[in-house]
Amino acid sequence: MLKNDLVLRAARGETTERIPVWLMRQAGRVLPEYRATRAKAKGFIEFVKSPDLACEVSIQPIDILGVDAAIIFSDILVIPEAMGLPYQMIESKGPWFEKTIQTKNDIDELIIADENDLHYVMKAISLTKKQLDNRVPLIGFAGAPWTIFAYMIEGSGSKTFSKAKQFLYTQPEFSHLLLEKITLSTINYLKGQIKSGADLIQLFDSWAGVLAPEQFYEFSLKYISKICDAVQPLVPITVFAKDAHYAINKISKLNCNVIGLDWTIHPATAREQANEKTLQGNADPCLLYADKKTIKTETEKMLRAFGNKNYIANLGHGLYPDIEKEKVKFFVECVKEFKS
Amino acid sequence: MLKNDLVLRAARGETTERIPVWLMRQAGRVLPEYRATRAKAKGFIEFVKSPDLACEVSIQPIDILGVDAAIIFSDILVIPEAMGLPYQMIESKGPWFEKTIQTKNDIDELIIADENDLHYVMKAISLTKKQLDNRVPLIGFAGAPWTIFAYMIEGSGSKTFSKAKQFLYTQPEFSHLLLEKITLSTINYLKGQIKSGADLIQLFDSWAGVLAPEQFYEFSLKYISKICDAVQPLVPITVFAKDAHYAINKISKLNCNVIGLDWTIHPATAREQANEKTLQGNADPCLLYADKKTIKTETEKMLRAFGNKNYIANLGHGLYPDIEKEKVKFFVECVKEFKS
Repeated sequence: MLKNDLVLRAARGETTERIPVWLMRQAGRVLPEYRATRAKAKGFIEFVKSPDLACEVSIQPIDILGVDAAIIFSDILVIPEAMGLPYQMIESKGPWFEKTIQTKNDIDELIIADENDLHYVMKAISLTKKQLDNRVPLIGFAGAPWTIFAYMIEGSGSKTFSKAKQFLYTQPEFSHLLLEKITLSTINYLKGQIKSGADLIQLFDSWAGVLAPEQFYEFSLKYISKICDAVQPLVPITVFAKDAHYAINKISKLNCNVIGLDWTIHPATAREQANEKTLQGNADPCLLYADKKTIKTETEKMLRAFGNKNYIANLGHGLYPDIEKEKVKFFVECVKEFKS
Repeated sequence: MLKNDLVLRAARGETTERIPVWLMRQAGRVLPEYRATRAKAKGFIEFVKSPDLACEVSIQPIDILGVDAAIIFSDILVIPEAMGLPYQMIESKGPWFEKTIQTKNDIDELIIADENDLHYVMKAISLTKKQLDNRVPLIGFAGAPWTIFAYMIEGSGSKTFSKAKQFLYTQPEFSHLLLEKITLSTINYLKGQIKSGADLIQLFDSWAGVLAPEQFYEFSLKYISKICDAVQPLVPITVFAKDAHYAINKISKLNCNVIGLDWTIHPATAREQANEKTLQGNADPCLLYADKKTIKTETEKMLRAFGNKNYIANLGHGLYPDIEKEKVKFFVECVKEFKS
């Protein structure tokens, strides 16, 4: 059994002796050790597809930062790729898809992916699970269907995702068709991750914030709900819908265990709306640019505001690559040493 | 006197016979007529600095779209330029500053701008005011100090504005020094605009959303408040802090008349928090990609939700350039024909 299961117990609403902590993008460029491993692969896609390297960087934050959970190193865009839309990761520009979804025919041509189409992630998870040797739980993840849809239509990152939103407004039926296909693929994918050893699942709806509330409910939350229904009987699941500040209460009614919060949400407001679900977050990633005194003061203010039940400390978004490793470590220590 | 003063009366909380409407970025690329005028200037900066051309595009939406207010064509970045930081507008990339603010010395070197440093905007306003011939009010505007600060430090647009936020966390005193200087320049600038003929002022805090709430209150709202105190005795003022969803109640306590809302805010939530201030917004700009039936249904839903008192219809952000002119016109007509 797990030596440190604080994150899982907090996710299930059980009392923990201290607040658990992990960091989004902890297996990432913020660690020099990650950059060294990354240099062994030819490109980003090869890196993601190499189970040995993915395992190596997934374990690094446990040894180096002392966090209470590992998250498997991968990318949310492996799903569009497995469904038939390959992508490239362009340095300092982000993802780019040669082919995008424009018509019903494009949607029909996509396959519903299953774990075999993503065998390299399954391999990375089982390797990591083995090498973690039950020290901490392993978190698996996927992009929420709307976020995956947004990249499939837009073909790249975007400030507004206006092409993807235009598709929702002009082709609502085809939108649902595509979202349904992404959802089925994601459920297969996550069930595979759980079978391979993932102890908890996090769904990232990174682009929830570009949608108007009614669109979020119709085109995003509905599919997140289906995924929760499929995953929660197996392991706990966290829903992180970035910038969907208006939806906390609706998310709390899903079959999910944890609600991820970005840094624009007041802890007290979230508690009021979250129906006693466990909350995760939500320090501003830029806080880690500050001096240690400020980091400690602000982190403790956050911990007191959330309280030490039903809470997992984290940032409100992924770590930025230019933050000093020492500061990240210090943030983790502040949480672990906190006495309420 | 003004023939159509609906926007001003709504801003002051007076009853109007119908809901007034204008659109952020109505003087912009969405109009072919704008693009024709734009082509007469060598580059974007020359365009902004040409009072005749600025006047021409400011009046176009009144003739073409039938909106209830004109907004002067300009750019929020004229303030950093007037203070000593020139910028370029790079096609499909956005603004770029050769020199940015890094040290206290950089801040000391900036001047506090006044209306003489921005004489071309004053000229554009008085020309436009004259040519409008009292048909509708003319809106003047400026960027809120935090948004201007963000560009001055970052030197360009950014998804996270992490350099600007890093400056807030590591140099809070110098941050206040710079914000104070921007605020004084902005007050001078807006007083000049009012003297030249602006009937209402809107402050755009376009990057409020990257800040955590406590940072927004300390580094943004405080300076917005000073500007409201200086402007409101002269003309009504609108505060639009995009994505600062948590701050509506705090904004409503400022000496402002109108609160601008982005499209992620439920009208009912805003009404609850806004202390009977007039609200402005908040259709999703992407709604205008939809067919006319959907535009009409969704617009009327929005108008009913806000009600016809203390309300100015608008989008929740600027018009996107690839929206059809006919759809924009149709949105305006839907508002003007609406019977509650």
